[in-house]
Amino acid sequence: MSLVVVGSMAFDALETPFGKTDKIVGGAATYISLSASYFVKPVNVVSVVGGDFDQDHINLMHQRNISTEGVQVKENEKSFFWSGRYFNDMNSRETLVTELNVLGDFDPIIPESYQNCEYLMLGNLAPQVQRTVLERLNNRPKLIVMDTMNFWMDIAMDELQKTIGMVDVLSINDEEARQLSGEYSLVKAARKIMAMGPKFLIIKKGEHGALLFHEDKVFFAPALPLEEVFDPTGAGDTFAGGFIGYIAKTGDISFDGMKRAIIHGSAMASFCVEKFGTERLKNLGQQEIDQRVQQFVNLVAFDTVLS
Amino acid sequence: MSLVVVGSMAFDALETPFGKTDKIVGGAATYISLSASYFVKPVNVVSVVGGDFDQDHINLMHQRNISTEGVQVKENEKSFFWSGRYFNDMNSRETLVTELNVLGDFDPIIPESYQNCEYLMLGNLAPQVQRTVLERLNNRPKLIVMDTMNFWMDIAMDELQKTIGMVDVLSINDEEARQLSGEYSLVKAARKIMAMGPKFLIIKKGEHGALLFHEDKVFFAPALPLEEVFDPTGAGDTFAGGFIGYIAKTGDISFDGMKRAIIHGSAMASFCVEKFGTERLKNLGQQEIDQRVQQFVNLVAFDTVLS
Repeated sequence: MSLVVVGSMAFDALETPFGKTDKIVGGAATYISLSASYFVKPVNVVSVVGGDFDQDHINLMHQRNISTEGVQVKENEKSFFWSGRYFNDMNSRETLVTELNVLGDFDPIIPESYQNCEYLMLGNLAPQVQRTVLERLNNRPKLIVMDTMNFWMDIAMDELQKTIGMVDVLSINDEEARQLSGEYSLVKAARKIMAMGPKFLIIKKGEHGALLFHEDKVFFAPALPLEEVFDPTGAGDTFAGGFIGYIAKTGDISFDGMKRAIIHGSAMASFCVEKFGTERLKNLGQQEIDQRVQQFVNLVAFDTVLS
Repeated sequence: MSLVVVGSMAFDALETPFGKTDKIVGGAATYISLSASYFVKPVNVVSVVGGDFDQDHINLMHQRNISTEGVQVKENEKSFFWSGRYFNDMNSRETLVTELNVLGDFDPIIPESYQNCEYLMLGNLAPQVQRTVLERLNNRPKLIVMDTMNFWMDIAMDELQKTIGMVDVLSINDEEARQLSGEYSLVKAARKIMAMGPKFLIIKKGEHGALLFHEDKVFFAPALPLEEVFDPTGAGDTFAGGFIGYIAKTGDISFDGMKRAIIHGSAMASFCVEKFGTERLKNLGQQEIDQRVQQFVNLVAFDTVLS
């Protein structure tokens, strides 16, 4: 059940129709590890931060049994910083500032205690860096899940495809699936992308849910219709964290096991968007997670009587 | 189980990325009645056409046990005509031509044999005309389902709200729900719209499925991920026809009954988009309908183990 999570730990400054934040803690590895920590302990993080990173947040991670042994601290440098503004529909956003800082020359180090992990979650990073992690593991994990984004399709498609060819599960959104495959139909896109290597493909559709493809099978997981989406930042990473955390907990990497994992990931993501940043993920109770999963069960449940 | 369907019967000329058609038969009542005819007989249609309408299509309707006794034929006038072009994503379209013709002064006549119907489907029409139908029925049906569109929200909101206040189920798409309620969140929109009268609200999201709201409950029905959407024209009406047809067949107007009806409506819509116009709806077999419904069952099926 040992899990390693690789990704950014960062500062974000966010603006939504509901308000704005100063620099708050964000980054893929932050959201993934917090979300996964509700399913499996420890969560072993590989990342890099500057001397400016928030020690209180590191302490919180420790309290949640997240190991930061693989988090390099570059005292004289600054943490990755992203600033963005969401438009009224919350489905689109613009980037205001991107400062790579420590992430610019990130050289991931895998502590000895992380070796021989069974599950690996590669959060969004340069595909070369994701591949370096794979090369530095002594043994191939039982399951490798990779997240990425359109940015790498724009500037590093060859590198990206090389890395995609090495993983078991790829997680991207619908627009990215179309860009990566050149196909508009998601069914056709999925077929092309799985031919690149991954046996499983998750296509995230935000408020419209997510699709899981495997061979010629497809599973559809809804998103919970919410009163209000307060801040969508980190929802995809929180989804990924719930997904890999649930798999690491159960050890079930079958198609049916992944269906259940996607429902748990979706439930975690539905918490994430209710408050700014990681706020809602800091202290969830088992009961409210169970209740939220039950809401997803109810949302799609029906008895069919064939006509 | 008696069902009355009110709506346009028309000619459409369509252009999609896959090709274009000359004038082919279309219109809300055409799609609704064809779709419903796979569940219940007879389907009693109220509509109006010009002398130019396609007699072969009327014959086809009769073969499928669709009564056209309530279809007025204005020999010296022309049928309603709409021409539109779909963009590459198939989710948006532009109207090229709209000729109201016989629909401009449509005065619906309810034949005596249609009176005392149990189920009424009001397809998209001017809300005043929809209300005239209600006034001309001797008894209120057991269930009244209404479809409408943004056009009436733009030019006749007061009339529209008056009609909406008289029906049991309203069926609109997500953008229309937002426009009608002034709320972006579909959960909030649903609450406001149900406060206008309808006890049930269906929000159609095209390729993203559909939501059914009732009191504080919500059900999510997926759309089937398809290889190719050939022509989306009529998909919403075909959905409505499958929905009301299934309800007329089963007589079950509970929330659970409507869930099953939505799955059947979704299955019928998934056929509609596979070919131009009504082509795919002319001669479906019971077995392929059952198989399609089963695909929807499989699409969302999972066993949950709470974490």
